[in-house]
Amino acid sequence: MEKAEIGLIGLGVMGSNLALNIAEKGHRIAVFNRTTARPHEFAAEAGPLSDMIVPCDSIEALAEAIQPPRPVIIMTQAGKPVDEQIALLRGVLSENDIVIDAGNANFHDTMRRFHELEGTGLTFIGMGVSGGEEGARHGPSIMVGGTEDSYKRIEKVLLDISAKYQDEPCAAWLGPNGAGHFVKTVHNGIEYADMQMIAEIYGALRDGLGMAPKEIGKIFAGWNEGRLNSYLIEITAAVLAADDEKTGKPIVEVILDRAGQKGTGKWSVIEAQTLGVPATAIEAAVAARVLSSLKDERLAAEDVYGARPAGGFGGDREKLLADLELALFAGKIAAYAQGFAVMDAASREFSWNIPLPMVAKIWRAGCIIRSQFLGTLAEAFSAGKVANLLMAPAFVTMMREAHPALRRIVAQAAEAGLPVPALSSALAYFDSYRQGRGTSNLIQAQRDFFGAHGFERIDEPGAHHGPWGL
Amino acid sequence: MEKAEIGLIGLGVMGSNLALNIAEKGHRIAVFNRTTARPHEFAAEAGPLSDMIVPCDSIEALAEAIQPPRPVIIMTQAGKPVDEQIALLRGVLSENDIVIDAGNANFHDTMRRFHELEGTGLTFIGMGVSGGEEGARHGPSIMVGGTEDSYKRIEKVLLDISAKYQDEPCAAWLGPNGAGHFVKTVHNGIEYADMQMIAEIYGALRDGLGMAPKEIGKIFAGWNEGRLNSYLIEITAAVLAADDEKTGKPIVEVILDRAGQKGTGKWSVIEAQTLGVPATAIEAAVAARVLSSLKDERLAAEDVYGARPAGGFGGDREKLLADLELALFAGKIAAYAQGFAVMDAASREFSWNIPLPMVAKIWRAGCIIRSQFLGTLAEAFSAGKVANLLMAPAFVTMMREAHPALRRIVAQAAEAGLPVPALSSALAYFDSYRQGRGTSNLIQAQRDFFGAHGFERIDEPGAHHGPWGL
Repeated sequence: MEKAEIGLIGLGVMGSNLALNIAEKGHRIAVFNRTTARPHEFAAEAGPLSDMIVPCDSIEALAEAIQPPRPVIIMTQAGKPVDEQIALLRGVLSENDIVIDAGNANFHDTMRRFHELEGTGLTFIGMGVSGGEEGARHGPSIMVGGTEDSYKRIEKVLLDISAKYQDEPCAAWLGPNGAGHFVKTVHNGIEYADMQMIAEIYGALRDGLGMAPKEIGKIFAGWNEGRLNSYLIEITAAVLAADDEKTGKPIVEVILDRAGQKGTGKWSVIEAQTLGVPATAIEAAVAARVLSSLKDERLAAEDVYGARPAGGFGGDREKLLADLELALFAGKIAAYAQGFAVMDAASREFSWNIPLPMVAKIWRAGCIIRSQFLGTLAEAFSAGKVANLLMAPAFVTMMREAHPALRRIVAQAAEAGLPVPALSSALAYFDSYRQGRGTSNLIQAQRDFFGAHGFERIDEPGAHHGPWGL
Repeated sequence: MEKAEIGLIGLGVMGSNLALNIAEKGHRIAVFNRTTARPHEFAAEAGPLSDMIVPCDSIEALAEAIQPPRPVIIMTQAGKPVDEQIALLRGVLSENDIVIDAGNANFHDTMRRFHELEGTGLTFIGMGVSGGEEGARHGPSIMVGGTEDSYKRIEKVLLDISAKYQDEPCAAWLGPNGAGHFVKTVHNGIEYADMQMIAEIYGALRDGLGMAPKEIGKIFAGWNEGRLNSYLIEITAAVLAADDEKTGKPIVEVILDRAGQKGTGKWSVIEAQTLGVPATAIEAAVAARVLSSLKDERLAAEDVYGARPAGGFGGDREKLLADLELALFAGKIAAYAQGFAVMDAASREFSWNIPLPMVAKIWRAGCIIRSQFLGTLAEAFSAGKVANLLMAPAFVTMMREAHPALRRIVAQAAEAGLPVPALSSALAYFDSYRQGRGTSNLIQAQRDFFGAHGFERIDEPGAHHGPWGL
């Protein structure tokens, strides 16, 4: 029997879809799963693709079925299951084989695994795969970390199965060891901020303007034709238009306002903090999900504090809608500026040399945050290195137009008692970044006063102390 | 020669002052320093206190000079120096002796050290000491983590040297292993938020109302007589009143607006994230210090984006000043609510059983954030367990009065282009917390749409999926 080109362990939703995608693109794939009946079921259900799928009953059979040097994808739950599969694979793989973790790993685990396999003859790739079930099946965005050599050996398969943006494949090698999973983590952090800011604007439309879901859905559908054009805006319009089958009500009205999270948003913020990079809009989004989970506390607090203040969001309705669109756009620019600054800092810290323009390019299709905006961003980064996205000429132009609307919306939401944690953090980030003379001279004076920490002066170098007379 | 009651290693600024404080309270203390000349110099300079100080030339001499069972305080730079001193002490100490790290340790290190000494016969105490140089000399706030038994054996010395709030000593045992250093870390996180919010209000007075430093200093001096009464407001008034000796200008005007940080603010935010507790006002304060350090980028951004928008901060001046005072107070309540929520979560996570009312009590004097407010807070927590500080009756009353001013100030600052990252995060936290029906129903719909994550319904239990027709 003809050997398979590649192997895959873990036939859950993501693994199954990725395997079908690989088979469909003409790459024979051997599959294995911990519950042994699954590979045969899976191959049997694959219809015309079943010829390209080699179901394996054991890890030994999997290794036997693949043409060496073997690439094997692990697509299981992140954490311990990955280490277990690596341990099993080490027993059956041989020199030059490649172990590929395609799950949502914490990049620290990826770095550890990469180093654990060094010197064993095997190499390790940590690969972020974005786009959910649908992406896995028909074209995800693929972010690869590992040695360039091992990437090159699986590049053809990855380019074939990846999403395409105007014929350009959305898969790339982003650097050694943890680079791929780190970029995937930040992708998810940005996704949190993007979704939270959309939810805040939805809140303004719902509670500030008193609009019904379908009406709000139409607004988002309209925005999807403009500068906000993106997958998330598109699906926002779709979910707002949908009705619940049971009650006939708009589905968003019967969904509980308690959001889940799986850890990558939190990881991206922890890494940002560790690197010393402000990622306040992402942090606000993670915090908002936590606060949403405290439903009982929130109900109790509303009882005690009463309904939100009346007012806010007055004035001309068309003007207000235009402001909301621009505010969301400005917030998005600031959030992406933070996310890319985090990747830039990590790239330097870990000597990854992440190609940021390429990151933007492979996010243009296949992943959850795919958008027209990322095309502009890819162009801006390709045009030359800037200290911050806010300083790229194309973004300066857009931000100049958009920030006045962001400040008007943040101001009105504050007055109206509507929470806009991510949008207000985005505004504060922008206003802090564009302020040549800030206020931390006062903080330096305080620190010197109570702790003799010293301060710099504006008129001469060196460390100085104040005339505190202590 | 009479044996010493306690030992101390590390005669830097903090160690020297702490040793003098201990000697002054009648406890004979043996001192050692890595540079061996220092203990003798130190004793010689101690004047009348030199009788109570036993300078030691070696670690062996230090051990010899203390009455067993020996308590030895290490007061060096955090990190490796502490481990080095512990290693040296292990060579000379004996059964039941206590090693006390009084530096600004990361509590993870404290937990590791605590466990490393288990079974050696020695016990370990991690002790947070707040109040800077002045506190160390005349009465710091002391936060102790370790076994209760080892705490009891040094309690008398600690109560004697601690700050007093109306005769109550500001030192306490807060729980096992890392509890003390964790509480100190959160103290510093809250301190960051407190200082940042003061700086934001200073910015509003300086740039929004065009006031000169001395005039602003008088405002803060006035506020120090009211609800904001605290050490930080007092010193803010003092530094704003001070003139530079070289130029004759107000000192704050010649200090560079680039703030330093030493890591504890960052640690508190990382731990908050790890625990899944929103600490957005503290995060904003840490981010503000990072942004302040990017002075060149900020100047370049101001060039590109131009000066901030005109306007904002209009209206009646007295009303505006009253709003600024109340806004700062409301922001402070939210920031403390976040900090105490972080400690509460850590206490449960690590089974520390931290007595939160006691934390508030020992912060009433000796430490940088000492204030009248902490007295109210201690009373509120003593009155009974609440889910969040925002739900304690006394704070509900205060917050009801104060939050309208916070929202007016955040709104005006947003319009005026003045960055208020910590104040706006505090407002968003409050507005999210008091909102019974939030907007994350939309986020749950999106997550189910793209990732089949499922959602809860408002009208029946279980996990559900939307009618997306995919």
